[in-house]
Amino acid sequence: MKRIFEAQPWQIVTHEFKPADKRLQESMTSLGNGYMGMRGFFEEDYSGDSLPGIYLGGVWYPDKTRVGWWKNGYPEYFGKVINAINFIKMNFIINGEKLDLATDRFDQFELNLDLKTATLTRSFVVTKGAAKVQFKFERFLSVAQKELSLQRVTFQNLGQQTVDVTVISAVDSNVQNEDANYDEHFWQVLAITPDHLIAQTKANQFGTPQFMTGMQVAHVTTLAQVAETTTATEIQQTFVAHLKPQAQATIEKRVVVVTSRDYADQAALTTAMTQLMAKVAPQSYADLLAAHQAIWAERWAQSDVQIDGDVLAQQGMRFNLFGLFTTYYGDDARLNFGPKGFTGEKYGGATYWDTEAFCVPVYLGITKPEITKNLLLYRYKQLDGAFVNAKQQGSKGALYPMVTFNGIECHNEWEITFEEIHRNSDVAFAIYNYTRYTGETDYVLHEGSEVLTEIARFWADRVHYSQRKGQYMIHGVTGPDEYENNVDNNWYTNYLARWTLEYTLEMTAQVAPEQAAKLAISEAERAHWQAIVDQMYLPYDTELGIFEQHDGFLDKDLTPASEIPADQRPINQNWSWDKILRSPYIKQGDVIQGIWNFIDDFSEAEKKRNFDFYEPLTVHESSLSPAVYSIIAADLNYEDKAVELYERTARLDLDNYNNDTEDGLHITAMTGGWLAIVHGFAGMRVHDDGTLSYKPFLPKKWQRYSFRQVFRGRIIEITVDQNGTQVKLIEGQPLTIELNGRQQLLN
Amino acid sequence: MKRIFEAQPWQIVTHEFKPADKRLQESMTSLGNGYMGMRGFFEEDYSGDSLPGIYLGGVWYPDKTRVGWWKNGYPEYFGKVINAINFIKMNFIINGEKLDLATDRFDQFELNLDLKTATLTRSFVVTKGAAKVQFKFERFLSVAQKELSLQRVTFQNLGQQTVDVTVISAVDSNVQNEDANYDEHFWQVLAITPDHLIAQTKANQFGTPQFMTGMQVAHVTTLAQVAETTTATEIQQTFVAHLKPQAQATIEKRVVVVTSRDYADQAALTTAMTQLMAKVAPQSYADLLAAHQAIWAERWAQSDVQIDGDVLAQQGMRFNLFGLFTTYYGDDARLNFGPKGFTGEKYGGATYWDTEAFCVPVYLGITKPEITKNLLLYRYKQLDGAFVNAKQQGSKGALYPMVTFNGIECHNEWEITFEEIHRNSDVAFAIYNYTRYTGETDYVLHEGSEVLTEIARFWADRVHYSQRKGQYMIHGVTGPDEYENNVDNNWYTNYLARWTLEYTLEMTAQVAPEQAAKLAISEAERAHWQAIVDQMYLPYDTELGIFEQHDGFLDKDLTPASEIPADQRPINQNWSWDKILRSPYIKQGDVIQGIWNFIDDFSEAEKKRNFDFYEPLTVHESSLSPAVYSIIAADLNYEDKAVELYERTARLDLDNYNNDTEDGLHITAMTGGWLAIVHGFAGMRVHDDGTLSYKPFLPKKWQRYSFRQVFRGRIIEITVDQNGTQVKLIEGQPLTIELNGRQQLLN
Repeated sequence: MKRIFEAQPWQIVTHEFKPADKRLQESMTSLGNGYMGMRGFFEEDYSGDSLPGIYLGGVWYPDKTRVGWWKNGYPEYFGKVINAINFIKMNFIINGEKLDLATDRFDQFELNLDLKTATLTRSFVVTKGAAKVQFKFERFLSVAQKELSLQRVTFQNLGQQTVDVTVISAVDSNVQNEDANYDEHFWQVLAITPDHLIAQTKANQFGTPQFMTGMQVAHVTTLAQVAETTTATEIQQTFVAHLKPQAQATIEKRVVVVTSRDYADQAALTTAMTQLMAKVAPQSYADLLAAHQAIWAERWAQSDVQIDGDVLAQQGMRFNLFGLFTTYYGDDARLNFGPKGFTGEKYGGATYWDTEAFCVPVYLGITKPEITKNLLLYRYKQLDGAFVNAKQQGSKGALYPMVTFNGIECHNEWEITFEEIHRNSDVAFAIYNYTRYTGETDYVLHEGSEVLTEIARFWADRVHYSQRKGQYMIHGVTGPDEYENNVDNNWYTNYLARWTLEYTLEMTAQVAPEQAAKLAISEAERAHWQAIVDQMYLPYDTELGIFEQHDGFLDKDLTPASEIPADQRPINQNWSWDKILRSPYIKQGDVIQGIWNFIDDFSEAEKKRNFDFYEPLTVHESSLSPAVYSIIAADLNYEDKAVELYERTARLDLDNYNNDTEDGLHITAMTGGWLAIVHGFAGMRVHDDGTLSYKPFLPKKWQRYSFRQVFRGRIIEITVDQNGTQVKLIEGQPLTIELNGRQQLLN
Repeated sequence: MKRIFEAQPWQIVTHEFKPADKRLQESMTSLGNGYMGMRGFFEEDYSGDSLPGIYLGGVWYPDKTRVGWWKNGYPEYFGKVINAINFIKMNFIINGEKLDLATDRFDQFELNLDLKTATLTRSFVVTKGAAKVQFKFERFLSVAQKELSLQRVTFQNLGQQTVDVTVISAVDSNVQNEDANYDEHFWQVLAITPDHLIAQTKANQFGTPQFMTGMQVAHVTTLAQVAETTTATEIQQTFVAHLKPQAQATIEKRVVVVTSRDYADQAALTTAMTQLMAKVAPQSYADLLAAHQAIWAERWAQSDVQIDGDVLAQQGMRFNLFGLFTTYYGDDARLNFGPKGFTGEKYGGATYWDTEAFCVPVYLGITKPEITKNLLLYRYKQLDGAFVNAKQQGSKGALYPMVTFNGIECHNEWEITFEEIHRNSDVAFAIYNYTRYTGETDYVLHEGSEVLTEIARFWADRVHYSQRKGQYMIHGVTGPDEYENNVDNNWYTNYLARWTLEYTLEMTAQVAPEQAAKLAISEAERAHWQAIVDQMYLPYDTELGIFEQHDGFLDKDLTPASEIPADQRPINQNWSWDKILRSPYIKQGDVIQGIWNFIDDFSEAEKKRNFDFYEPLTVHESSLSPAVYSIIAADLNYEDKAVELYERTARLDLDNYNNDTEDGLHITAMTGGWLAIVHGFAGMRVHDDGTLSYKPFLPKKWQRYSFRQVFRGRIIEITVDQNGTQVKLIEGQPLTIELNGRQQLLN
């Protein structure tokens, strides 16, 4: 654990600069607008350790898969998001010497990410010889005009003598990925002029698209421009200032970033970026910032969570929602959540099952339904890829990928990732979850029914009938608990596969005739699905009265995790994979994840027996783990346990709990705090009949918490304090809800 | 299947040259003398497709392990044998034009590997313009002087006019491995003069040794030498001949190859190769060849297998023994069998469990005990590496590696290879097998007892106690059947682990006091081992009366392999790994391997039930598979099945059954034919009480077979024909054996 920012309700701010924490600081001060994003690296060159990174949503490269011996069905390539052209680069020469915080003497340092307005500022006073100059940097990625990056730098001469400052503002395509296998460069420049650069990703052997990006740059400043040059890979525009004592100067840099995802060819790209730049040209920096801030204000109005009496919790909560919003706000149904969003290279910026399992439940609560629906449409549009994946495994129907950009599986790790076919049901579950929460059946009866049908077809083929047991089984899978590989009859997988078949039978029976014709489900097929539903094997231990995580799990040495010596935790950094696999320790909820998904299906006693058995074996070494346990703990009135687990998720990145935030933020795990508060502490549920209910408690150390929730055209505000719970309708039509088991009309 | 050589009892000969089969031809005409070896690639440059390869035993390089996400306990590097300096290179310029069989017109081609004398010859008549020249190449790697390579080339002018032939004989260090990740070169030249070259492998990041090799070259010829030159990487010696019609010339090339495995430094290496060259200098080619042939004659005298009535079977049998002998003849206890010996790059020339499971049983029968003992000593000397391997997994004791050069695990494939920890018991089993066969207890009571104790310590730590079952278990393994990964309680693994503990308890109770003190096995430790022996869980199905391959195996869809459509075989080329893993299909014997190991422990009915169950599920997609099934089939008097399975192993490479012999020969699988004939058809057994017994049958299509066998200081000859079986003592003291259950005195 390491806390390098100050406790502030709306800001991620520090007045200390520690080179050793530079990467961590960069991760934590990342910006994004769903379309593009960047780590909080400096505008100017920094000669110390740093991980610069700018990423464009959906712009990726298929790298060679690294496995010892490739086998049939393994992915052909490993998709990775690539580090884009560095368009924020600005260097400063002070009296002939280059500004470099790795070596310069400076004070009054402040680095400040404002969560309310999504702007990053940095200031310091640097002393170079006799010169003393204060710098103030500000930047944001506009949510009002997604292609627009704005930067403003003000510098003031605080010394006694005149200072010459040369500003070299650049667009630099000579960038690499740190995780490139063999120092590969992914970009080649197609066109370069003093005001724009167009580059394309290199050709690849896998037939995936090459991406083009165009960057148009302009400056607004009173400084004199003295040069504009281009090299093979870089644009440089040079300005100079001669500052008398106390004098200050400002330079504003505007960059428009377009990609071939939106424009067909180089000509269209060029036209578009020129037009976009012309469109924003008449607007001042203040206007552009105001438009950006107005949208952020609206976002917070329908989703803010307030916590009184615990500023660290308050900061953590808002930082998490900020991380999610910068990654995805539903503007483009071809994009999704990367586990690290735009904050790092790891996990390749691709889409995982995190979206359906963790992001969908949160976005249903904090954004309008269309935004979540776009996450469903993302999978619908990638159905063709899912057919390919299933076929590659020799299976029928559709198999959604574990890791993808385009629907095709593209991970780089067979032994864990690939067999996690439960993901297929998680995609189905998200359709159900959306439908249940929103009450909107149009999606499930149209696009959704196609997705469900093809997933059901996969399961009906992937199960096998065990003659010995007289039941259907699923062998050779990995469940959500990735500390078990290639197991048989993972309860979660089998339960969700059965449920998927059942739900698909139910939903497809309700579609309109023309949709039914499209789905073409025969009676024999329906009968086969029903037979699997009726005879699916679900491992259960009668003696303990619990679901067995998978066949043989209860044969393990079931010593609780609390007995692992502290110096051996986390086990994934201290134990061999061999030892981890055969241990009983659970990385993240598996049976418990299933119980959360279908919480209304289990009795109090069932939930309790399973929680009491599995929780002591769970090491929560996935950032996605504690929140789900916190919810179930709250459901079982284990309030202290619920709070303890909440605390492991709420400030995961801010306090660098997993000691790896320097690589980037755990974006999809940023859902955890909200889930623990709303589904956990407040006990929010939406039941199959559409009832919205709460069963709140107040953590002992808090005075009050309050959150706003979007629900079926309304905004509802829930406030929990020592006097009880108040549920208020902020916007929309009256509604009857259930609070602690009693009906209440909101109006 | 593809047969490109003619059926000859002692020769691998062809009169056809097909460029498309060049690699296959090269594999099949490989030479080796245990110390070094080479594929049958041409002396002269060949511009078509070819896989040149010369390998030096024990000279390897640690390459980066290729896995998606490296985890604790994974090997640090992937060891691979590297392609050595090409010292056989000789080019021929005929009237100014280079000889190149890829483009030249030629006839009367013959390529002939003589198995009896281990020499490779090649001849052809090439026509280039008006010139017509016959070439005869001969080469061998001396078994009388391991460092010596001899080549002789004779060429004769068959045309009407004088022909100028320039011979450029080279030693070329500019060689690569075909499977190098990124076109790496592994050699750097340290010294080069016209008569020698010394090169060293590049430095590596893993702290494994760099190897030096020195090559001293000399020519014996009446041709005029016109030049000797060196480049940065190559020695070239140039000779010319002006041949009148019918005239012929001969050039003999001698190369002495030394390595830093035998000499401490560059100076010692230089001295050694000079001295070795001086030592052989007075001897003629004929003398050197005769010394080589005499040793081969002795080898065949004690191991030849004769088959009458089936020349293909005869040729296959001898080719297999030849392959084994060229790979290993026990001269250096630091060396071992690579699965492809010196015939290709694949499997990296490293040592696998093939040695203990397949090579030891054969070498016990065909060579003197010291030779097999060296295979045991190889593991003894690598005990330190085995400690490292166990520690890397967080386990106690010694874990022998799946793939190694130096005792340290160095494979490149987690998902299959690594969890095959049964290999540890196979090392123990080889000690027992050696002791039982030879009757020599010195090894097991000294070095062997140390190896056994440390393996036992590994097992005692690696098992866990299942509270639910009240038994010890082994979770998370792969058995010999590599089409199942990360299974629990593989019967073979559990059975051998239990046996190892039992045998270790028994043997260590018999060691001398000073050895016991060295082993330091406490009473508590013995008691713990005994408890595991008494309470080891061995999966068994009472209904079928069979050992279950691993937990849950019988829950699979048990459709026999015969129902897999022909166009989907072999399944490893047609099915996804996902489908293979969950299928019931067995790559190579698992339960059946265990039954072979301990064949006296099981009743006829037990053996029959298990064979009848598992054989129909076995696809034999490992070259090591059919022989073991053939032995058990023979044991059960399933004679037709035994012969059918024998045929799949006897000419595996000669007929390119697995369609991959172009990569190199399946050296360790070359044990299969001998095992099927001797252990199978002849029913040879050595029992715990030292009795040697036979229960032979004659395959229907054979008239007669006969083999010689080394046994406890004797050579015994067994002949089986339509009149029955004759067992004859060729050499050594009288012995009572058992033939078809009846005692018989050999004298």
